[in-house]
Amino acid sequence: MFNIVLKGGDVLGADGQIRQTDIAISGSIITQIGTIPEPQANRVIDCRNKLIVPGFVNTHTHAAMTLFRSYADDMMLMDWLQTKIWPAEANLTSEDVYWGTLLAIAEMIKSGTTCFADMYFFMPDVAKAVAESGIRAVLSRGMAGVTPSANQALAESESFYNEWHNAGDGRITVMLGPHAPYTCPPDYLKKVTALAGKLGAEIHIHLSETAGEVADCTKQYNKSPIALMQELGVLDHGTLAAHCVHVSPEDIAIMKEKGVRVAHNPGSNMKLASGVAPIPQMLQAGICVGLGTDGAASNNNLDMVEELRLVATLHKVHGLDPLAVPAKAAVDMATVQGAKALGLGQVTGQLETGYKADITIFDMQQPHWHPRHDRISLLAYAASAHDVHTVIVDGKILLDNRQFTTIDQEQLFAEADRRGMQLVKKSHTK
Amino acid sequence: MFNIVLKGGDVLGADGQIRQTDIAISGSIITQIGTIPEPQANRVIDCRNKLIVPGFVNTHTHAAMTLFRSYADDMMLMDWLQTKIWPAEANLTSEDVYWGTLLAIAEMIKSGTTCFADMYFFMPDVAKAVAESGIRAVLSRGMAGVTPSANQALAESESFYNEWHNAGDGRITVMLGPHAPYTCPPDYLKKVTALAGKLGAEIHIHLSETAGEVADCTKQYNKSPIALMQELGVLDHGTLAAHCVHVSPEDIAIMKEKGVRVAHNPGSNMKLASGVAPIPQMLQAGICVGLGTDGAASNNNLDMVEELRLVATLHKVHGLDPLAVPAKAAVDMATVQGAKALGLGQVTGQLETGYKADITIFDMQQPHWHPRHDRISLLAYAASAHDVHTVIVDGKILLDNRQFTTIDQEQLFAEADRRGMQLVKKSHTK
Repeated sequence: MFNIVLKGGDVLGADGQIRQTDIAISGSIITQIGTIPEPQANRVIDCRNKLIVPGFVNTHTHAAMTLFRSYADDMMLMDWLQTKIWPAEANLTSEDVYWGTLLAIAEMIKSGTTCFADMYFFMPDVAKAVAESGIRAVLSRGMAGVTPSANQALAESESFYNEWHNAGDGRITVMLGPHAPYTCPPDYLKKVTALAGKLGAEIHIHLSETAGEVADCTKQYNKSPIALMQELGVLDHGTLAAHCVHVSPEDIAIMKEKGVRVAHNPGSNMKLASGVAPIPQMLQAGICVGLGTDGAASNNNLDMVEELRLVATLHKVHGLDPLAVPAKAAVDMATVQGAKALGLGQVTGQLETGYKADITIFDMQQPHWHPRHDRISLLAYAASAHDVHTVIVDGKILLDNRQFTTIDQEQLFAEADRRGMQLVKKSHTK
Repeated sequence: MFNIVLKGGDVLGADGQIRQTDIAISGSIITQIGTIPEPQANRVIDCRNKLIVPGFVNTHTHAAMTLFRSYADDMMLMDWLQTKIWPAEANLTSEDVYWGTLLAIAEMIKSGTTCFADMYFFMPDVAKAVAESGIRAVLSRGMAGVTPSANQALAESESFYNEWHNAGDGRITVMLGPHAPYTCPPDYLKKVTALAGKLGAEIHIHLSETAGEVADCTKQYNKSPIALMQELGVLDHGTLAAHCVHVSPEDIAIMKEKGVRVAHNPGSNMKLASGVAPIPQMLQAGICVGLGTDGAASNNNLDMVEELRLVATLHKVHGLDPLAVPAKAAVDMATVQGAKALGLGQVTGQLETGYKADITIFDMQQPHWHPRHDRISLLAYAASAHDVHTVIVDGKILLDNRQFTTIDQEQLFAEADRRGMQLVKKSHTK
């Protein structure tokens, strides 16, 4: 007796091939892939005309920033941060972060994402939203060494790790989150690195997002941010590096040597005009690259299908190479490579027996899914995240025929709208 | 007594402002915008929590190429055309074109597009699909002067114009469609221009899509394609120019002088690695720029929300300018500027009394539409075309709460799948 059987769907297997077959789930695990003639299960889902893929892995976001979605756009980066985002963030309460995170989780579940990496603050409230909603997450308390709360952030990171690492039925992993080299001076990064060694925690950090920060770092330390991180030992504990837009061939060699995993955020990089990361070169060097949406204030959604389309098309036009980042490579970055980037390559990101049942099911009965010469191409170049029909995480159905099973959507929208509006109003009346 | 009243929606007005109000439709026309306390109408649609915008205008596609969607991707342009697309197209029948076009129309209606410009062949069958489905379209018989059918194409264009221009209750406009300078030698273009003058028809043409064609043209004629077109009089009858990726400041000056309207196709240009068109420079020069999807074989969908997101983000990262193509400019390109590009600026593309009731209604009760600090920003940076709830063209509801009213979806999918598969099979067995 299985818990769930997915019957007759087009399944993207771990070998990269798509076959019409069945998937059986027992507890939180995929226990069988192959034809099951008369399935005995608590729930059998008819998956004809559906494409079944590993749930998407969003390797970099700031979930609660959904509250600032559409608040400020089309601005210069520093103007945007200093006059809009930071004043609004200064008013955030732990409850705001809970509801903003839950809004992000709802959006991610509905668009097929089953696991995400977050860096923000009030992280116990983020973890609570993750635990309650049923999604999988890698959470980091953002730390800035240049602020008065620098030491508090270190202490909070340690207690957050001790309280929440492997919590939520094992769905929550905790990393340390030093924000970036330009907000964390070397002495502070050494403390972070020491804490990582003590806890056995990995590190999630922003690296080389803008040309300006690389120029400043080079001027101050005579080293690129990547080289500086290597020198300080930041790359010795397992590193998830967000952005890596402005990296040199020497930086890429260091990243390869240290096993740095990259969270590439094409949508955010485009909207903020950060630049185009040398992703084909990183892939060529054998670096693990996952995809992320970044926060909803700089994207402005958390749509992984959009990101996988962008990675497959942006690098073609940027390098004037129509063969750059083909469809399958883009889909892999959104799934299996994303899981590896989060250190969860043995847990999720593939449809394979023994892996966690983190599964996204697309409804293909839409005009843009016809005809079906190649389903991988359709997913990469034609699909919408809003074709997602059903989402399973850790063996539990979180989205059932487009309806949430763990989230009260009406209450969520009301709370998020009220809190988002209040935060903006407060920051204007200061 | 109105025909339709849209009650209490958030309406994007012709002044660029969004207000919660009502819209009344009588016959094919918007007859009132403003509060209508107790509307008397055949149909009142509750539009609370809905965003009402002008229907999108897709200024360049090859609709029937939906049949080749996902057939061949991630290839070099000439390899793709010569080994895949042209052999498959050689087998197309008029019935195939009818069904492929209808699939495209279904996809466009479902994603909020109310008007499109098409260039293909078997155009009476394209027009039949337009007439039956209720969408608005600007149709051109593609003509290539270098093929044996060159003169036949001219004759067919003339009879197609005479039979179909202003047909379908006035929803169909016919332009002449010389394919491109590299497929239409100067003598042939002179014939096309003469025919345009005789009929009073405008011209839809591909110009300067790739660097290679510009280099070839310059080598052969010592002129850019734009300058050559000016010399041949091709720009004298009203011109819709698709792509214009590789244009110089001198070309832009000619385009401005001749009132050339541009169909910019960012998704296709990215996927085919054609390059990035100097759109900010064109806008600066006061050139009318609309957006197009190009055909589904080179995109691979017909999603105008995706195109308006791309125009708002691609040019930011390409020019390293976060202020390039702000949200409102992108929305305008997808609507009012698109209508102007097709010569329909007095007919559609705006929500204004006296204009045709070509209207797209978004359902905002989705996570990515919360909170709502700025609805234009939400449309440009967060929305999905699949949030489209209801679509009205020429005063008739074509999509009603996500269901087609004029198209049998099941029959359409079956025909399109069967025909798409057969065409590909045939081209392989030759």
